[in-house]
Amino acid sequence: MTGPDSGTGSHLALDSASQSLLFRQAHTANAFTDGPVSDETVREIHDLVKSVPTASGGQPLRVVLVRSAAGRERLLRHTSRGNRDKTARAPLVAVLAVARRSAVPDGALQAAYFIIAVRAAGLAAGPMSGFDPEGVDREFFADTKHSALMVVNIGRPTPDGHRPHGPRLDFAQVFSSV
Amino acid sequence: MTGPDSGTGSHLALDSASQSLLFRQAHTANAFTDGPVSDETVREIHDLVKSVPTASGGQPLRVVLVRSAAGRERLLRHTSRGNRDKTARAPLVAVLAVARRSAVPDGALQAAYFIIAVRAAGLAAGPMSGFDPEGVDREFFADTKHSALMVVNIGRPTPDGHRPHGPRLDFAQVFSSV
Repeated sequence: MTGPDSGTGSHLALDSASQSLLFRQAHTANAFTDGPVSDETVREIHDLVKSVPTASGGQPLRVVLVRSAAGRERLLRHTSRGNRDKTARAPLVAVLAVARRSAVPDGALQAAYFIIAVRAAGLAAGPMSGFDPEGVDREFFADTKHSALMVVNIGRPTPDGHRPHGPRLDFAQVFSSV
Repeated sequence: MTGPDSGTGSHLALDSASQSLLFRQAHTANAFTDGPVSDETVREIHDLVKSVPTASGGQPLRVVLVRSAAGRERLLRHTSRGNRDKTARAPLVAVLAVARRSAVPDGALQAAYFIIAVRAAGLAAGPMSGFDPEGVDREFFADTKHSALMVVNIGRPTPDGHRPHGPRLDFAQVFSSV
């Protein structure tokens, strides 16, 4: 972070390389190298996520790291067919859950902060909603107050590990003024 | 972004200054300077947000920028008492809405990306859920398929414009492994 890029007319404080790392090169990764993702890395990701405020000040996010073969098998049972292969192969799979009674947006806000923080660790994140939420809740969140929100595949992407971006809505399609 | 901080043992790819800008110094701002937030800045924020993938690939986020005194008045009518002053004074107020039928997390994911991108522009964001959602929907999203998710106050914070962080959950309270 070196302040606004001089001479480019940019209004951003974040430098271009960090913009690329966190935003512009953010693809949903579908294929990963074998490189592992350590608990130390995940601790540093948590350390970033925990600082960012939510809309109501809550911290409803809970994360189950699927590390064992047995845990992976239990998750794959409830994963939609199209997502099964990449989830089977990702170096680390995280199941993100939120308190069922949390103020609605706070859990998803923290989930998004988690995804950006994964990218801040130099890793790719593949967020997915293609799973059976009741099944995943039975497997991993029985007898808790939490409910699965999304599954995130995490690792170092292979060079061809993502599809090109689809078309994006432009400014005037998203923003209006009153 | 200069790669992992050498010698610190950090596993993060994002440099320390950017970590502070986006995460560690992220407080909910309650007081702002008078400095305006231009449409050009908001365009650059959008340009960051639009790149980041959602769980289902949707782009359900819509944003109403409240720029006129009349628009501000319409919003304040539906803002909870505790939030009214800071929303009245913020240089820019954005009402974030999502398609009512969108896959649940995608709208909130994009809202979180928006908040992080506001910080990437060197601004502070104060996300709030303290408003009457039906009232805000009637004012700003009548005859649309969208529904208000949160209100975000945006501007440059004053030095004393935020309260200290409350206690945060530690790693073992948020993460478990299977």
